Amino acid sequence: MEQTPDHLVAVDALIRVIPDFPKPGIIFRDITTVLQDPQGWRETVDLMCEQAADLSPDMILGIEARGFIMGAAMAYQMGLGFVPVRKPGKLPLNTHSVSYELEYGSDALEIHEDALGPGHRVLIVDDLLATGGTAAAAGALVNQCGGAIAGYSFLIELLALSGRDALQPDVPVRSLLSY
Amino acid sequence: MEQTPDHLVAVDALIRVIPDFPKPGIIFRDITTVLQDPQGWRETVDLMCEQAADLSPDMILGIEARGFIMGAAMAYQMGLGFVPVRKPGKLPLNTHSVSYELEYGSDALEIHEDALGPGHRVLIVDDLLATGGTAAAAGALVNQCGGAIAGYSFLIELLALSGRDALQPDVPVRSLLSY
Repeated sequence: MEQTPDHLVAVDALIRVIPDFPKPGIIFRDITTVLQDPQGWRETVDLMCEQAADLSPDMILGIEARGFIMGAAMAYQMGLGFVPVRKPGKLPLNTHSVSYELEYGSDALEIHEDALGPGHRVLIVDDLLATGGTAAAAGALVNQCGGAIAGYSFLIELLALSGRDALQPDVPVRSLLSY
Repeated sequence: MEQTPDHLVAVDALIRVIPDFPKPGIIFRDITTVLQDPQGWRETVDLMCEQAADLSPDMILGIEARGFIMGAAMAYQMGLGFVPVRKPGKLPLNTHSVSYELEYGSDALEIHEDALGPGHRVLIVDDLLATGGTAAAAGALVNQCGGAIAGYSFLIELLALSGRDALQPDVPVRSLLSY
């Protein structure tokens, strides 16, 4: 029988479940209680790095805003550079931009054109894989810069939303906790 | 004659200077070129942690969004918990809120009421100290939770804007680079 490792159980136990946020029927998983716990935060970063190590990335990309939290710490731990993917208008120089659909309306993400280039193997990091729209957009930005997607790393994956189906096939996806 | 340490010179050299952004006459200092450099990012985090070590914080607070980048990595490096201070409506549970003035209009920041409490010594982290409005608001949130401000840590301080004058007196302020 497969057992869940103790450290994963510990991180899981720190996630706060909030019913009916942001609207009735939605179960929101609040990660701030993981972040504010010294041991929980350290283990989260270490485990996400461990899970992604075999993907051999040479650059970490974090998606604004919660992806900055995981991504920047993972880049530090792995000794890699960190590239922020941001909401429109936040980056000061020339950018590539990708629009993507939300449940209501659309949104866009931007990356500096010179943030990375051919030869870079990029690990895309965010807190949550839900429908996959944001993650797919970040992947498109990596490709627009000429870089390759080494893989995706998420703290949480919501299996019922099938976010992996929105991502490019054959790109590895690692998530620490799945619900 | 005082010498600037080599590693600080190295971080300084990675900052990209962009004239006339976001509007004519403003010199924007772009830190993305520090973040994306593996050695630059590692040294930035290490030096900011070193500079703040004697303040003996037991919690790191990061201000959305660029403060998440420095703050989360510093919390990981120092073995502390990380608390995000966010724009309105982003945190799922009960929050304290503080409004502050911008050049045109106003903005607000929020913290979970139970993110920290009496006895906590909080280091407030952001990329930039400019006029100090955002940093002062974050300090007010720490106090509303009952916590104490151990100090502030910035990557860049713009001396001409006298941001320190907007902060509570006697609270230590550390900045890695000053212009």
